[in-house]
Amino acid sequence: MAKLKVKRIDAGIQTAVINKEDANQIGLKNGGRINILNEESGRSITAFIQITDNIIGKGTIGLSSGFISQLDADDNKELAVRAADRPISLEYIRKKMDNGKLTENEINTIISDITNDVLSAGETTAFITAVYINGLDTDEVEYLTRSMVKSGEQLKFNTHPIVDKHSIGGVPGNKITLLVVPIIAAAGLKIPKTSSRAITGAGGTADLMEALAPVEFKAADIERMTEKVGGVIVWGGATNIAPADDKIIVHEFPLKIDARGIMIASVMAKKIACGAEIVVIDIPVGAEAKVKDMDDARRLARQFIEIGERFKVKVECAITFGDTPIGRGIGVNLEVREALIALEGNVEQNPFTQKSLTMAGIAFEMAGRVEKGEGYRFAEEILNSGKALAKMKEIIAIQGGNPNVTSNDILPGKYSFNVNAKDSGYIVGIKNRALITIARTAGAPADKGAGIYIHKLLGERVEKGETIYTIYADKEWRLGKALAEARKYMPVAVEGMLLERITSLN
Amino acid sequence: MAKLKVKRIDAGIQTAVINKEDANQIGLKNGGRINILNEESGRSITAFIQITDNIIGKGTIGLSSGFISQLDADDNKELAVRAADRPISLEYIRKKMDNGKLTENEINTIISDITNDVLSAGETTAFITAVYINGLDTDEVEYLTRSMVKSGEQLKFNTHPIVDKHSIGGVPGNKITLLVVPIIAAAGLKIPKTSSRAITGAGGTADLMEALAPVEFKAADIERMTEKVGGVIVWGGATNIAPADDKIIVHEFPLKIDARGIMIASVMAKKIACGAEIVVIDIPVGAEAKVKDMDDARRLARQFIEIGERFKVKVECAITFGDTPIGRGIGVNLEVREALIALEGNVEQNPFTQKSLTMAGIAFEMAGRVEKGEGYRFAEEILNSGKALAKMKEIIAIQGGNPNVTSNDILPGKYSFNVNAKDSGYIVGIKNRALITIARTAGAPADKGAGIYIHKLLGERVEKGETIYTIYADKEWRLGKALAEARKYMPVAVEGMLLERITSLN
Repeated sequence: MAKLKVKRIDAGIQTAVINKEDANQIGLKNGGRINILNEESGRSITAFIQITDNIIGKGTIGLSSGFISQLDADDNKELAVRAADRPISLEYIRKKMDNGKLTENEINTIISDITNDVLSAGETTAFITAVYINGLDTDEVEYLTRSMVKSGEQLKFNTHPIVDKHSIGGVPGNKITLLVVPIIAAAGLKIPKTSSRAITGAGGTADLMEALAPVEFKAADIERMTEKVGGVIVWGGATNIAPADDKIIVHEFPLKIDARGIMIASVMAKKIACGAEIVVIDIPVGAEAKVKDMDDARRLARQFIEIGERFKVKVECAITFGDTPIGRGIGVNLEVREALIALEGNVEQNPFTQKSLTMAGIAFEMAGRVEKGEGYRFAEEILNSGKALAKMKEIIAIQGGNPNVTSNDILPGKYSFNVNAKDSGYIVGIKNRALITIARTAGAPADKGAGIYIHKLLGERVEKGETIYTIYADKEWRLGKALAEARKYMPVAVEGMLLERITSLN
Repeated sequence: MAKLKVKRIDAGIQTAVINKEDANQIGLKNGGRINILNEESGRSITAFIQITDNIIGKGTIGLSSGFISQLDADDNKELAVRAADRPISLEYIRKKMDNGKLTENEINTIISDITNDVLSAGETTAFITAVYINGLDTDEVEYLTRSMVKSGEQLKFNTHPIVDKHSIGGVPGNKITLLVVPIIAAAGLKIPKTSSRAITGAGGTADLMEALAPVEFKAADIERMTEKVGGVIVWGGATNIAPADDKIIVHEFPLKIDARGIMIASVMAKKIACGAEIVVIDIPVGAEAKVKDMDDARRLARQFIEIGERFKVKVECAITFGDTPIGRGIGVNLEVREALIALEGNVEQNPFTQKSLTMAGIAFEMAGRVEKGEGYRFAEEILNSGKALAKMKEIIAIQGGNPNVTSNDILPGKYSFNVNAKDSGYIVGIKNRALITIARTAGAPADKGAGIYIHKLLGERVEKGETIYTIYADKEWRLGKALAEARKYMPVAVEGMLLERITSLN
């Protein structure tokens, strides 16, 4: 233990900074955990430390204004600093590393410590890695789901049933929420949809909706708006719904891992916390999708359904074709425009509209609105009738956007380049990951106009010289870089196209 | 990409701080990796970011003076900031998470990225966790060892053979290096011993030696001193020998994990980098030791020996009894005093002296100094003759300490408490972990006089009222806390001692 005086350091950091000599005296290592007590106010906090040998002098402790106010302290105030106890959750993480089965209490403790920043980034990553390798059984996924639900707020509604949908990510152009939500709400069902922003993609649903209306709302606003117009499309990150999930995703992202048990719990926790009673889950299967084959997709679907049963939530899964973009547009404005065009009644039969109607149709059947097998047609009627467009305008309006927006108002970037077919043939393959990379290089999702418009979808005929796809960008230099990526990856394969001709020298 | 102006923030932190709006624009998440380029000087660095919404304004980037000088920039200098590429080492870590076998190149890349802070704490922990769970085969341990050796400096000597020793840690009072090094050096062999400071223990060997002489030296000093007097006892952390190991240990520590393959590589890399040709490894086995049973100890010993063979280093392992403290003293001064007493010729036969002579004896046999079976006696002669004491004084002197020090100069703490036997009997069990906890609570290793002196060793007879052990502290309040721990843990069991008497109420 040492008595150290406060030095205010405002660099937006969440660690305390102390001198090397004090650290040695207390017995602390860089990144270690300390307990800081203001003996006068009785307030204490736990923090991680950074050790310095020059910035903070011996006898002082560098703290952010946030920490100082939590401690009810002030500049030069003397605080008692000691090594903090090792949180018991580390024992439970260790247990999972040793392939043990965690109890509900153990999982609650881990999730609570992750949510409250008691665990360091490294410690949280150790948990995720252990789950990725050793897995979670159904009981553990149930505990994890419940724990995540309890980590934040839960929506409550007066009308029922509450419907929700989720797509396992990774497929470009997947704007189906912009059709599914207004179709379902137009039929009188409630769908309070929270979505994410793009992490690795060219545009998350929240990014798309933001082109039409604000998406950052508190839980009470989501309840109120949903009760009033039947649905919303908001950014989940602005709410306090299942915040533990967000804390975990941050650490999964750099490793690009998908710890299956955590993923199932994350999805289900968000749905349960949003009050969902009927959930349709879209599982794209494909070589470049998260789920590679049908067997794995069926296994995942059964797990979702079983967890749903344990929480009395009806779950159905749609296993979908994942090796194609969902529709023609990739990137914020291109996708929003495409969705508005469909809502405005120009419904082209393609992966985007078919998948949207399929998902909405399953929800209608699950809710008992229509007989089994009638959902798709019912959803299609709502879309064609203009009721979905009217509902979308209500949703845009209640979220604070302009309800008079039309597809003509949403424009792609002013710089563009057409990629044309060098030979005639059929589109036989589209590389989803390459498309995402090109769209991101062009500026998506930060640049709203950036992205790709696909003129020729999978299976369509293209004649020599016709445009296969167009790259759009808001900034000229970004277009150039995206084009270089396109030349490198050649994301669309046309049957009969000669890629390269190598002549033998013999 | 964004152009941001430098704002100097000196809080000893290794991250760049940028505004939330700029982060969204560039497409960065908190903890993400950025590349910062000074277009004028051409200098660039990669750093992790912390995102703030108030400390650093839009259009600026908070950087430490260290980063600013690396970039050859200055306050208000405009820098180009973009999201950095994902290091390829993350793919290799992912491969180990998926239980793949890593190539030498892949391991080199991971270790290089850990050493150069390219990987975050979370990413490094993911690697350690994956190795802990999925293991490394002998090839991988060899690659890892070589990679760690190459991560830093290597000692070179003109005389041969170079001897080294290592004890797998966790056993309290393990001061044997203070006898082994002078005994071996007194026989004319070279032993450049680098040791660690206590992490979880009551005193690392470097902490002990520091009571006698400075322990922080550069590689060239270690070479020079070893050539001159035959041996040194220094702190490895002050050198640049196998620094990758130190970077890894920091992340293993909070999880208390011992990723076996990493541990073997760490030990062997330090020895190889120190130029060792003959290595004796002490593997304590016991219920509270790192290695729990003989089979596991033998397996570990074979792995050490095999890795040794691959690097042309002769390795022998001594599997030792790990469920007792090594000698009577635990804590810096108590251990140093005990070692000096033995060097001064008062050699009591106990675990400390027996283990020290055994280890030195094995080294003598391996070096061909004596016949097989003669090593222990040869080591004992050197100790009894006073040659080891004379050599220790030379080592103390060359490291800058006072060679005239005697065991009477090294004093335990001025506050003490005797724990006496409530009944007569034999010492039948000693809880090592409890002893360490009590010694640390008493102030060890930061308080030099703090610790425990054990009057009655395992198997010894104690009469009712006799002192079993004494707790020492430099500070009175710490003694009180240590005593409370002692009452809680009761670390020494006496046969026949009634622990508690519970009377039935029936």
